[in-house]
Amino acid sequence: MQNTPKALRLHIGIFGRRNVGKSSLLNALTEQPIAIVSDTPGTTTDPVEKTMELLPLGPVVFIDTAGIDDIGALGEMRIKKTMEVFERTDLGLIVTEANQWGEFEERLKNILKEQKIPFVVVLNKIDIISPDEEIIKRLEEEKIPYIAVSAEKRQNIEELKELLLKIAPAEWFNPPTLVGDLLPAGELAVLVVPIDLEAPKGRLILPQVQTIRDILDSDAYCMVVKERELRDALERLKRPPKLVICDSQCVLKVVADTPPNIQVTTFSIIMARFKGDLPTLVKGVKAIEKLEPGDKVLIAEACTHHPIADDIGRVKIPRWLRQYVGGKLEIDVCPGRAFPENLADYKLVIHCGGCMLNRREMLSRLYKATRQGVPITNYGVAISFLQGVLHRTIEPFPYAKMILEDN
Amino acid sequence: MQNTPKALRLHIGIFGRRNVGKSSLLNALTEQPIAIVSDTPGTTTDPVEKTMELLPLGPVVFIDTAGIDDIGALGEMRIKKTMEVFERTDLGLIVTEANQWGEFEERLKNILKEQKIPFVVVLNKIDIISPDEEIIKRLEEEKIPYIAVSAEKRQNIEELKELLLKIAPAEWFNPPTLVGDLLPAGELAVLVVPIDLEAPKGRLILPQVQTIRDILDSDAYCMVVKERELRDALERLKRPPKLVICDSQCVLKVVADTPPNIQVTTFSIIMARFKGDLPTLVKGVKAIEKLEPGDKVLIAEACTHHPIADDIGRVKIPRWLRQYVGGKLEIDVCPGRAFPENLADYKLVIHCGGCMLNRREMLSRLYKATRQGVPITNYGVAISFLQGVLHRTIEPFPYAKMILEDN
Repeated sequence: MQNTPKALRLHIGIFGRRNVGKSSLLNALTEQPIAIVSDTPGTTTDPVEKTMELLPLGPVVFIDTAGIDDIGALGEMRIKKTMEVFERTDLGLIVTEANQWGEFEERLKNILKEQKIPFVVVLNKIDIISPDEEIIKRLEEEKIPYIAVSAEKRQNIEELKELLLKIAPAEWFNPPTLVGDLLPAGELAVLVVPIDLEAPKGRLILPQVQTIRDILDSDAYCMVVKERELRDALERLKRPPKLVICDSQCVLKVVADTPPNIQVTTFSIIMARFKGDLPTLVKGVKAIEKLEPGDKVLIAEACTHHPIADDIGRVKIPRWLRQYVGGKLEIDVCPGRAFPENLADYKLVIHCGGCMLNRREMLSRLYKATRQGVPITNYGVAISFLQGVLHRTIEPFPYAKMILEDN
Repeated sequence: MQNTPKALRLHIGIFGRRNVGKSSLLNALTEQPIAIVSDTPGTTTDPVEKTMELLPLGPVVFIDTAGIDDIGALGEMRIKKTMEVFERTDLGLIVTEANQWGEFEERLKNILKEQKIPFVVVLNKIDIISPDEEIIKRLEEEKIPYIAVSAEKRQNIEELKELLLKIAPAEWFNPPTLVGDLLPAGELAVLVVPIDLEAPKGRLILPQVQTIRDILDSDAYCMVVKERELRDALERLKRPPKLVICDSQCVLKVVADTPPNIQVTTFSIIMARFKGDLPTLVKGVKAIEKLEPGDKVLIAEACTHHPIADDIGRVKIPRWLRQYVGGKLEIDVCPGRAFPENLADYKLVIHCGGCMLNRREMLSRLYKATRQGVPITNYGVAISFLQGVLHRTIEPFPYAKMILEDN
């Protein structure tokens, strides 16, 4: 289903005594019955690994451990296996019953602290057990993030996911490469960079510079051309490039000028993947097909720039949307750091590229919409869609393409 | 002699009454008898244009005007011609005798002010006339730059040149193109960018970005490769590129990997031309041939960076110099904003690229050395010279190449 290598997934270890509801919690988080759920202590006999897309975090591996308070021969084996789990854990959950905190949990806490693994304490079963005030007081004193949930009744599960996003290690939010995985070593990409009035004098914009550098870091190389010179540049080559990456504003001309055997995408789509979650954005953009005149759409901008005459968010996208829908839409613009909590009135949210946000913030915004059932996309994906070329520009990303084609 | 188009030269208009010594001043500035010098009023009957390299300003056109206080039919013609000169003047000189300031000079001053042309008042003939205190007081009140000189005796002529550098319009110091003149529209340049520990993470260094942008602005395009991929990149092309530009640190490999029919230069040489004066730097570098063990060399750095283990100015260039000279040199390093006034002890000054200096400052430093008869070059030109490839890397610049080959 997904082609993220396991090593690049966030590994989330679930620790706790037998029968505190670890496997139920995993089921609640993933909303799939992937682990055996039972109220007989010790049913989970081996660490079970499950890979999946866990919004808002993205590609993760859950590691469900056996209860390490077990005794006896089998128990010893289990303890050893559980201890090995810490070594590959990026993010820990200590699951306990809401009124239970003993030597065992202390030991887990100390191991996680020593190994500098960020973790959260999940006080489970609040549908049948009241959280212990004393435990909460101690966690707060030690500044340990905690949350009271009911895995069984799915209470506070969404809040737990948001908490995981908050405490996930910072480096998780910096994927290792912009385009390196799309471009084998020794291969060539062509970057199409329009030079217009918005281009900073004597410079390139940051995503373009980052992409060039990323290509060189990947032992590949690139051509940099304006859209007008693209045809000549392609004709000058004995072998076609692996990939053409263009600015969204010239995507129509670039798609037209690039032979079908060469993949084409846009800097916006590259950055959308790097900075957010491309499958979510592609899923979101399909909502445009269902928009009807009068529907409410939110345009969300992360910065408060001075809008120019032909502003992409204020002018161009609203115009293309109206043309697509064939009537007026109710379009709100929300600029700056404030992103509305309640999005339920909107049929679609279209977010800017988010150059002012870090990946954690962007994922958090995407998730705010997703958990309210509101489709969310961004400028880059929306522009390709509205220009009718998203099928082409999403080609380099098979999973996102599958979502686009899925009905 | 030079291939700078006339339109790109700084036009310096010389204005003043008949017989104040305009033509003598021009001779003194240029040290060549290019205008008729005479003490009969009105010998210069037409605006005479002279193109030349005037250090420290670079390529200039001097426009020597006829005296516009002339009367009669011929005089009217002359006045008209002189007035036309203002229209193409970037920098004005009002030449007057040191005790002479009347309605005529006021008129010149007002025209220059109205047309927002920067100018300097030259109080001439101080060898025979004392400057008038009243005139100087008025100029100072009006904040008009002035200088008292004797064109005849060449007094204060160097100071006048430095004053011209100070008041020349700021845009003069930003040449219109980095490489656009080397690269016809539609042509291809290959940029070779080593990615080493010094490269900023996820970025390119500014001269590389500026060069890419300049190439696009010139309706040309480029390939960006690491040195290891250069051969493959060149082989992938049906037609060779017009120019290869590489980082100085990989120039030997790049020269070796680039067929002789393709021009090669370095980013440092490109920037040396953009930011300073390439002919001066090439003239200066030849002094390395004459260095002998024990000679004093000054390494001048414009910034106070923390030197790294293999620092180019502190370690690499001194080492190559010693190898070239075959013995120890006395090498001083002068970091930061302070550039010594007295350079007479040095057999050579090697300046850094000057990324922290603007072009006006760099030209002023070059001139400080030149007027003291001390050869000056910079890191980029010196590296190509010491690696034995300057003849190749200077090829795109015919005038500088001529200076290199001139014995």
